[in-house]
Amino acid sequence: MTSSREGRPGSGPVPAPAGPDDGGDTEAMALLEAARSDVDPELRRAVDTLPGQLRRIARYHFGWERADGTPAAGNAGKAIRPALVLAAVRALGGRPKDAVRAAAAVEVIHNFTLLHDDVMDRDATRRHRPTAWSVFGDADAILAGDALQALGYVMLAGDPHPGAARAAARLATCVVELCAGQQSDTAMERQAPGEVTLDGCLAMAEAKTGALLGCACAIGAVYAGAGEEEVAALDAFGREAGLAFQLIDDVIGIWGDPRRTGKPAGADLLARKKSLPVVAALGSGTAAGAELALLYGVPADPSDAAALARTVRVVEAAGGRDWAQLQAGDRMSRAVQCLARAVGEPAAAGELLALAEFVTRRTV
Amino acid sequence: MTSSREGRPGSGPVPAPAGPDDGGDTEAMALLEAARSDVDPELRRAVDTLPGQLRRIARYHFGWERADGTPAAGNAGKAIRPALVLAAVRALGGRPKDAVRAAAAVEVIHNFTLLHDDVMDRDATRRHRPTAWSVFGDADAILAGDALQALGYVMLAGDPHPGAARAAARLATCVVELCAGQQSDTAMERQAPGEVTLDGCLAMAEAKTGALLGCACAIGAVYAGAGEEEVAALDAFGREAGLAFQLIDDVIGIWGDPRRTGKPAGADLLARKKSLPVVAALGSGTAAGAELALLYGVPADPSDAAALARTVRVVEAAGGRDWAQLQAGDRMSRAVQCLARAVGEPAAAGELLALAEFVTRRTV
Repeated sequence: MTSSREGRPGSGPVPAPAGPDDGGDTEAMALLEAARSDVDPELRRAVDTLPGQLRRIARYHFGWERADGTPAAGNAGKAIRPALVLAAVRALGGRPKDAVRAAAAVEVIHNFTLLHDDVMDRDATRRHRPTAWSVFGDADAILAGDALQALGYVMLAGDPHPGAARAAARLATCVVELCAGQQSDTAMERQAPGEVTLDGCLAMAEAKTGALLGCACAIGAVYAGAGEEEVAALDAFGREAGLAFQLIDDVIGIWGDPRRTGKPAGADLLARKKSLPVVAALGSGTAAGAELALLYGVPADPSDAAALARTVRVVEAAGGRDWAQLQAGDRMSRAVQCLARAVGEPAAAGELLALAEFVTRRTV
Repeated sequence: MTSSREGRPGSGPVPAPAGPDDGGDTEAMALLEAARSDVDPELRRAVDTLPGQLRRIARYHFGWERADGTPAAGNAGKAIRPALVLAAVRALGGRPKDAVRAAAAVEVIHNFTLLHDDVMDRDATRRHRPTAWSVFGDADAILAGDALQALGYVMLAGDPHPGAARAAARLATCVVELCAGQQSDTAMERQAPGEVTLDGCLAMAEAKTGALLGCACAIGAVYAGAGEEEVAALDAFGREAGLAFQLIDDVIGIWGDPRRTGKPAGADLLARKKSLPVVAALGSGTAAGAELALLYGVPADPSDAAALARTVRVVEAAGGRDWAQLQAGDRMSRAVQCLARAVGEPAAAGELLALAEFVTRRTV
């Protein structure tokens, strides 16, 4: 995983309420809470159709069971994608009740990618718990992921809604893109710093992070009976918001306050990750950019605080931070434009906007 | 992989023609050849829609490219599943031309499972070439497999045939079962010899090997416009034939002539694999079965030919071979009964029967 605090947006634990000025966040958190309670029964029902051990691995992954099979309090993630599906249905005048299964199917697909990403990235924890592969082994985690991908389509195939087939087609197409994004990500980590281009890095982030957020919004539009133009506009809205998220997430990965992010400062730089601000700095043509290339050419010494501080400063001096923040703002305004194209009435667009701002407006 | 010479039926290279008495094999090989030439263009077209590196990994896996990306002669396997789809369509009076994309989608799904099985089983070669993971690494092989699973549904979603949605639902449900079968298989390999039951072993083989052969036949029936009863009968036909295949394959794994199978004699016993004849012998309640349990309790010494010969003899003395051969015959006669239920006219059933006999009637 190149550059995300939590793997992908909304994969982390439910956050504490934001500060008093964040009225939009309060709305977003209420939407997420409502989506979780609407979708959770459908999600559990679907996962419980899996046979034997696959069910157990999936239930562990979703946080509903401990490794020994006893029930757990459960923390299945923020449910941003289901909330986007349901908000998109409402924004376009559909009935969200009819889209609950589709929203759950999108979440199942998201979780298939998390299971496999954790195996590939050798990530030992997710949502503050040991990852499925580290508990059950690689083979079981791969198989549970494979079964969840299939389950997503089984759920849509059994959905009587007239939009279900169109949604399944979008979802399967999106999975190919997600795989391509993750593939680019792992390939970039193996490349020399100078070989990674900013365009390549942005394309990777769009495929890996933007595509499924876009697909969630698009599926909501499909379930509202929208035409192809509105569906495409909502897809673009989710993609742009996803890119804005990734940019902000990468900024947090370097300049975030460890007391607020819960992550050690500069962890991405120590891991020599080619996050967006880093790649922008490397390609800046500045003296600081050239110094960064030298620093990134050798592994970091985690005990050398001065070297880390120097690396943080050169990324900033090379313009990496400013570029990422401007770019994030630009992506959010593009997202808003896409949203306006699909949803003429500003009031109807409010929920989608609140969700997009929630995932991107995060404490740096 | 517990007990299959080639992982799953038809995953190996195209075999040399059978002996002069095998008239049915000649028919089956002509059917396979025809299926390959019908399905190959659709398969290549679909795989070529994958983005960048995923396409390259998939093209390597199918044998169309070398590891360096240059074209290869190509050996994408026997195409048993596509041949079953097309033969089932013909048997029930449908138009096989309309089912070519569905047949290719089934083959794409089969190949997704092969890519992932090779990663999990650490198999270094497939179809006489290095496996994808050993060339591109685990992450790329997992991602190419994930993308192929999604591609199978994309192909069906884009198929205008009225049976496409029903076929996609069956295929996704089948994938869950395939995953459960592979999960049981890897779990059984970790269990002590006495813990594996014959029923568990048969259920595993049905899920892992029978389910997709049954699904291929069922999808053919769906594309012929058959009713649910005929579809279910063809599914059962494929499952029973798949179990017969697995039983025979396991017998070959112990008593097969290395000059004809291309595998060292007793390889499954040296690896302490819990193949069906072994599990039957272990559960036989005989003195030979008890001796086998002792032998299986410690790792084999590959240089000790006498110990291997002794192991072969006790499996046979405990009735493992006889049981597996009787059981295979029984499964084939059940398969024939299922086929007769769905296809009243014996002449119409001829192709499916020839294919089933081809995969099961193999030189021991």
